[in-house]
Amino acid sequence: MRVLGIDPGLRNMGWGVIAVDGSRLRHVANGVIQTDAGDLGVRLLQLYRGLTAVIAAHAPDAAAVEQTFVNKDAVGTLKLGQARGIALLAPAEAGLAIGEYAPNAVKKTVVGVGHAGKEQVQHMVKVQLPGVTFDSADAADALAIAICHARHLQGRSLRIVERSA
Amino acid sequence: MRVLGIDPGLRNMGWGVIAVDGSRLRHVANGVIQTDAGDLGVRLLQLYRGLTAVIAAHAPDAAAVEQTFVNKDAVGTLKLGQARGIALLAPAEAGLAIGEYAPNAVKKTVVGVGHAGKEQVQHMVKVQLPGVTFDSADAADALAIAICHARHLQGRSLRIVERSA
Repeated sequence: MRVLGIDPGLRNMGWGVIAVDGSRLRHVANGVIQTDAGDLGVRLLQLYRGLTAVIAAHAPDAAAVEQTFVNKDAVGTLKLGQARGIALLAPAEAGLAIGEYAPNAVKKTVVGVGHAGKEQVQHMVKVQLPGVTFDSADAADALAIAICHARHLQGRSLRIVERSA
Repeated sequence: MRVLGIDPGLRNMGWGVIAVDGSRLRHVANGVIQTDAGDLGVRLLQLYRGLTAVIAAHAPDAAAVEQTFVNKDAVGTLKLGQARGIALLAPAEAGLAIGEYAPNAVKKTVVGVGHAGKEQVQHMVKVQLPGVTFDSADAADALAIAICHARHLQGRSLRIVERSA
């Protein structure tokens, strides 16, 4: 089965698709849908069309979206909420069940500790998806979310043994 | 021309369509798209499909969405943001330009004062759209947003003289 992970954002919407084969994971594709400052409706439409195209191209069987960090900045929270609405709509329209994970839950599953740094997350994404490359931290985060969802779907407590590259 | 007004909300998405004929406004239709508690992606999909159906049925030429009140409740702001993303997406997908108005701007345009109460708004919606009926405050708010946008598109400073019913 294939799992799509999405790291929602209005300017940068990270996405990553992995294939799950038993306990093994394999990288399929990743990227970022970017929108420039401008009309908000048009930006949301770009995100929607981008995600819809990703789903059509890579045919995931399940999806997971990061639970937005709710910070003190209400304007930022609102912006993120709008982008997150699109991140949830596109998989729902494709009939996919959607998992939601808080950032700390993703880190705990992928790295083993809830307060891991970005570099640790990216390192463990590379360890678990041999050969993967990504240009952006948002795409790496999206792959981490996909890994987290795959592990939960597998019903495993996560005991990833790091391998040397 | 026809103007669609949207009052975004996750549980209740109010909408109203009015026709603009010179300086005259006419009520076309209004309603509320409701979603029950449950899977967030499914609820957003219901809102999206509902709004898309409204646009297909009533063929508006322009749209306006209320600028969400950003309050102190970050969880509520995030929920509203997600619904608002859908409220902006559906018109954008139909190629409609979208106006955004803060609640106070809507009240100022429709009632004449920025801090008008709900009953005053509903009263003035009825005055400006003779014969209109609505079952919900959210639909009335959506009609008020449509009226506000119509007046701004007309480029008028608003001097609505109240008529006795």
